[in-house]
Parts: sequence; C-alpha cells; structure tokens
Amino acid sequence: MKTVKIGLLGLGTVGGGTVEIIQKTLPEIQRRLGQRIEVAIIAVRDLNRARSVDTTGIQLTDQTEEVVNHPDVDIVVELMGGTGLAKTLLETALSNGKHVVTANKALIAEHGNELFALAKKHQVILNYEAAVAGGIPVIKAVREGLAANKIEWLAGIINGTGNYILTEMKKPGADFAKVLKVAQELGYAEADPTFDVEGIDAAHKLTILASIAFGIELQFNKVYTEGISKISADDIRFAEMLGYEIKHLGMASRTEAGYSLRVHPTMVPKSVLIANVSGVMNAVMAFGDHVGPTMYYGPGAGAGPTASSVVADIIDVIRWKDQPQADQVPGLGFAADQLESAPVVAIDTIETSYYIRCFAKDHTGVLAKITAILAASNISIEHLHQEPCSQNAEDATLILITNTVKESDLNTALAALSELDAIEEEIMRIRIETLGS
Amino acid sequence: MKTVKIGLLGLGTVGGGTVEIIQKTLPEIQRRLGQRIEVAIIAVRDLNRARSVDTTGIQLTDQTEEVVNHPDVDIVVELMGGTGLAKTLLETALSNGKHVVTANKALIAEHGNELFALAKKHQVILNYEAAVAGGIPVIKAVREGLAANKIEWLAGIINGTGNYILTEMKKPGADFAKVLKVAQELGYAEADPTFDVEGIDAAHKLTILASIAFGIELQFNKVYTEGISKISADDIRFAEMLGYEIKHLGMASRTEAGYSLRVHPTMVPKSVLIANVSGVMNAVMAFGDHVGPTMYYGPGAGAGPTASSVVADIIDVIRWKDQPQADQVPGLGFAADQLESAPVVAIDTIETSYYIRCFAKDHTGVLAKITAILAASNISIEHLHQEPCSQNAEDATLILITNTVKESDLNTALAALSELDAIEEEIMRIRIETLGS
Repeated sequence: MKTVKIGLLGLGTVGGGTVEIIQKTLPEIQRRLGQRIEVAIIAVRDLNRARSVDTTGIQLTDQTEEVVNHPDVDIVVELMGGTGLAKTLLETALSNGKHVVTANKALIAEHGNELFALAKKHQVILNYEAAVAGGIPVIKAVREGLAANKIEWLAGIINGTGNYILTEMKKPGADFAKVLKVAQELGYAEADPTFDVEGIDAAHKLTILASIAFGIELQFNKVYTEGISKISADDIRFAEMLGYEIKHLGMASRTEAGYSLRVHPTMVPKSVLIANVSGVMNAVMAFGDHVGPTMYYGPGAGAGPTASSVVADIIDVIRWKDQPQADQVPGLGFAADQLESAPVVAIDTIETSYYIRCFAKDHTGVLAKITAILAASNISIEHLHQEPCSQNAEDATLILITNTVKESDLNTALAALSELDAIEEEIMRIRIETLGS
Repeated sequence: MKTVKIGLLGLGTVGGGTVEIIQKTLPEIQRRLGQRIEVAIIAVRDLNRARSVDTTGIQLTDQTEEVVNHPDVDIVVELMGGTGLAKTLLETALSNGKHVVTANKALIAEHGNELFALAKKHQVILNYEAAVAGGIPVIKAVREGLAANKIEWLAGIINGTGNYILTEMKKPGADFAKVLKVAQELGYAEADPTFDVEGIDAAHKLTILASIAFGIELQFNKVYTEGISKISADDIRFAEMLGYEIKHLGMASRTEAGYSLRVHPTMVPKSVLIANVSGVMNAVMAFGDHVGPTMYYGPGAGAGPTASSVVADIIDVIRWKDQPQADQVPGLGFAADQLESAPVVAIDTIETSYYIRCFAKDHTGVLAKITAILAASNISIEHLHQEPCSQNAEDATLILITNTVKESDLNTALAALSELDAIEEEIMRIRIETLGS
C-alpha cells in the first residue's frame, strides 16, 4: 500500500479537523482508497502553542516555505486563509509540482484564474471543494454530477452567518442588531461582521459556483453585492404574511446579454424547498436544462464539515494525480481553453418582481400618487397592503408587490416616489425570485 | 479530439433522453470533456416504430447481442430494464471488455455483486448513477464527496410515485385509492402499482445506497419493506396536527448488532428539511461522522433527469477508463476486497418511537386497559389524542405517540392490545424518525 504525504499550511479549526479525520477515519478511508495518507509536516504560527489534536510524529514548523518546498510532500493543503502569503506559497507549491487542496474562497475567487493556469502549466491538480458551502460536495455535484447539462441558473444560501441572522429575526421582538449581537456571542459572527452580513463572503463563493456552472472565468469584482443589514423585523413579518421567506441568496443566471452574478436579500416563496433552509445551514440549487432543479444541503462551516471536503479533495487528488491531464476534471469544470470571458450584466438589467416597503403620510390621495408613478414606469401592483406604521402613528406602512419589471424601470419609479413629500425615509426594495416554482 | 462510441440497449423514454442530450448538449459537454461522444448503435424492440428522437446516422438493430459484441463500441449503456436478458447482455459486454453504464436499479440491487466482480476481472467500469434517485448525483456525492466520512445513516425519499401519493393525500377529501387513481391517469403510477407503493422499487435503491455508504455487499433480499397502501387520510391529518409529515422513507443505519435496512412509512418532524420534499421529487439525506447531515434533492425520474445521470456516467467512464483500476473509484465505493458481508438486523430489533392509531369502543375503562398493556411492555406515552371516530359514531379514534422503545416490545404490546374486545379492526403503527433533528 502506497503512502501519500500531506503538507499542511495552518493548524487552526479546519487544519485541526483535517488532521483529526486523517487520524480517526483512516481505516475507513483506506477501505475506499487502498492507499495510506500521512500528514508529514504542518506550518503553524506559534510552535509553542498547545494543540487540540495529537501531532506526534508530525514535523511542525513556523517556516511556511518549508511545507511547499518539502521534497516528500505530494499534496499541499492550504488552510491559513488570506490572499497574500497564501497566494505566494501556493504559487511556489504548484511550481514545485505539488498538488494543492485549499479551502480559501477569497483566494480562488480573486486569484483563481492565475492559479489554475499555473496548475495546468505544471501538470498538477488544484482542488477547492471546501471553499464553497463547507461540507456539501457541491463543487463535485455541479462540475461532475451535472456535467451532461447546460446549467441555466443557480441560487444558494452560502453564508451561514447571514442565514442564522435572518432565521432568528423571525422570532418576536428580534431585530437585526439584537440578533447580530447574539450571533457574535455564539461565535457565528465575527467582531467585524461586514464580510458575512454585507455579502462579500457569499460573493466569493458565488464567483466560484458561476464559473463551474457556466464555464466562465472567475470574475469576483463583477458580482453585485448587497447585504442584509437594512432588513427590518417588519420586512420579515410582511414576508411571512405574504407566503415568503427572506434569504440572502447568491444567484447566477444566463441572460440574453450575458451572465447575471449577484448576492442580495431575496424573497423566496415558502413552497420552494430552499426557503425552508434555516439557521447556519447552507444549500445550493442548480438548475440544469435536462435535469431541472436540484439542491445540495448541509453544514456550510465548522471544523468537521470543512475538513470533510478537504479530505475528499485529497482523496480525489490521489485518484487522479497519475492520469494524463487531459483526462482529469479541469479546475473550473471546463477545459481551460474553453472558458469564456463572458460579459457580466449590470444589476439594473435584471427582470423580476419586487417587494417595496415605504412609510407614507396617511393623507388622502397619497396612494393615488404612488400608483400613478408606478404606472408611468409600466409597473403594475400584484399585491397591496397598508397598515398603521409601527413607529409613528401618523404614518402608514405600505407594502407593494410588483409584477415582473426591469430593475432600471423600478429604479426610475423609486426615485420619483422618494421625491414625494408624503414618503418618509428610505424606501425598502427586496427582489423576489420564484426559483422555478 | 477523440471520439468515444456508445452502444445503447433500449430506446424508450430514458434511451430517447440520452440520445437527445448527446445530440443537443454535445458542444457544452465537449467544452468540459475535450472528447466527442457518438451513439454508434442502438438495440430496439421494433425497427419499424416511429422515434421521438432523430436517429440519422445511428445503426438501429433488433439484435441486442450486436450492441454488446460491436467491435467499435467502447461503452454499452443499458436502458432496457429487467433482470433477465439485461443481465446476460451486460455479462457479455463486460466480458468483451466494454465499459457499462446502466440505470437498472433492480439489476444492480439483485445481481450487482456478480456484475461488479465481473467488471473488476475484465478491468472495466460499471457505472449506475441513474439507478438511484434519477437526476440527483447522489451516488457520486456519497461515494466520492463524503469519502472522508464514516457514514452513520442515510434516509431517502427515493420513489416519486409514493411521495406524490402521500403529498396529494393531504388535500381535503383525498384517500389512498382516489389519489392512486389520479396518479395512474397522470402516468405517475403504473397500472399495477405494487412495485412503487409497496416499496420494492425503493428497496432496490436503498440496497445500493446502503452498500456505498457502509461498504457492504448488496443484500436486496434482506431489506425490510412495508408499503403505503394502509395509510389513511386520518393518519395524514393526525400527522399534520402533531407536527409531522408521513414520508415513505428508505433508511439504512449502523446498529451495534449490524446494519438496519428498511423501507416503510415514516413520520418525520416538519422541522426536518426532508419532510418538506413534496410531489414526485426525491431527496436523500446522508449523515457522515465528520460532515453531519447533508441532503441531495431533485427529480427522481423522467427522461431528462435520468438521462442527465446516464450521460454524466458516460463522461466519468471516459475520464477514468485509461487509468489503472486501483486508482479508479471502486464500483461500490470501497475496494472489492474490503466489502463486508455484514449482518443485517431484523426489523424488530430497531429502537424508535411510534405513532399508534386504533379505533376503540368508547367505554369507560378502555383507556386504562390500553395504558396498562403499554406500561407492561415499558412503553410510556408521550402524547395522547382521542376524538370521535369519523366512520362510526360509537367508537373513538385513539392516537398515541410512544417514547423510544424496541420494536419487539412494541409488537408484544400491540398483540395484547388487539386481543382487547374494545379494540376494533387492525391497529395502525407508523415509525417516527427524527433524523438527527
């Protein structure tokens, strides 16, 4: 039985989980693989720190270059994060002919195009299942399992922090700030939550999913990103009343003009399965022209789930590494010379229906003015609800659901609405997606 | 660019779908694969029948042996069904050194052990993604995506007909017979529905899932199977009232004494995502020791979805076929010499909680007798509901939810209950599974 040697960059939560799987589940893995896996060397920040896993027999170093230059290491596993040193180290590893497994979504989304080219040049594999949706094997499912399809669209709950917050906001008395504070206390949200709640993390993952779905280059800087911090408890309540859930979705779809890549709060009918994904769990829907709607669900973060994907990637590298490159699954699922530099369309070109919430002075004729403005942009109202404003007894809260309109037309109408004297504060607008239902 | 030649056995619904994908989506597939796929020959029952797909340039034959013996055919795709002729033909194909892709769940579940051994002997690949859950790439997800885990259990809605019937039975006035009739009219159920509604089809699929989850031999004849034909509209209503959905689940789990393999109606809390899978859709949960709960959802049947999996298997065969066999993913996910002939435990050894519904004469003291019998078997009652019987005003309908008990103890108690004069007709018993929630 051959032994494959792993060099690990980072021994934090996921690094520890990876070592633990290799130690604990090795007999089961060997029953599948027929080869041994051994962690030979791990780069850590502080050699003197106490470890949660047993590192007996493993060389520890605080010199990261030692791992990527180690002559015995077959596969470098990068779990340190960041896009600076991690990138330099992986470039060295790939150039040294070492296969790479990474869980680093930012690195793949922002620098993947160069890294995959470098891997191809040096005839090595760069795997990244853990970078999207943690323990869910969604990269494998889309890249291989749906390979017979032209993927028409995908939509995912790909940030557990955001989904936890939106789920908790359904409880009476909850609002964004309160729930965020609890999430921070529980360790679900960072002290600076921007990365999660403003959708940057989700945009990294969406960038990767869109590439493998459509066969396009990674284009993180073109993803439209809108966070969930402006969602109010009222919005959550109205969504519930109207038969929707508010989810922070990453969406990628084909349009006639190009690809639409976006992360934003979205109202999804409760009858769609993904609307029922709650708490920190993740789920990704992928719609193929032949298969129709499919969904992949599971934990999107945590030591065990993320390490599960890291080790599955290691196993795949071991199976594939001696094959001719042409027979391997390409890094982004499509042959490198077949990737399109496709145009990504602006957010205001999308067509969908919208939830609009505004506070208006409760005067005669206000509703007539609002509907006239909407009608002027060819927007018709599918549903209207008015109730006294919870914050100010003199105002009314107005909820409108529009028909399907072009976002640029909606923006024109919203700009005109906000000019009305009767409209107070900012107007809330949430996109509605029926996701094939 | 190389061309790989396919020989098709059968040109029914899925056969037609497969030809259509290869014709219609070939440019997209070639962007991924870098190789051409061509259907060279198809065996059909009647050469003179009109076809729904264009077969120009494809050799049609009514001699099935021609396909498996054809010198140019690299991959034989079996979509004819049955376990007689199909088995003989695939044995010939494998012995001729041809790779095989099949959607035939009965054949794999009942004769897979011999077929995988034959494939191994002749160093060819036998793929079967379409045999379980149609278009959902669940074989790939469990066999490869979760390869770093010891799978603890799995549970699936793996028969669309049954799930459609149970979903429709929630509508007012619906009962099993009426809904079945509609399902037959819509083409969701066969004229003889036994195979679907009594769980045989699900047992075939569960057999396969259990093998790849645990690394055990295929043991179809040891699966406990119970159908849905005795579920009443009352049961559906009571389940709803108590916060459950009734699903026809295939379940496989590890127990101390061996493996539990079973297909039966199951009450699942609505808060578990799989309880919300409705209509003809399929879903499979797999729980790994590191990843935790994951779920795979999509259409379980139909030309497009099934052919999507068939063609994904063809693509995988093309990628893997020139590799040394030791590097390939083994047929059942575990190396052939690592498969366990594990004991499968009897159904009455399982421990779970139960829903019990009975009709009792509405006499004083009856409830005391019932609870005394249950207490004698150490069964406590978590929930009790009594209402007038909908069919007979003199009777009461009693609904009990038990604590977790051993099924053999429950059976003892139920036998004693049915001896009571006050108990009318058969007692209904439905297993409850919380599925990790």
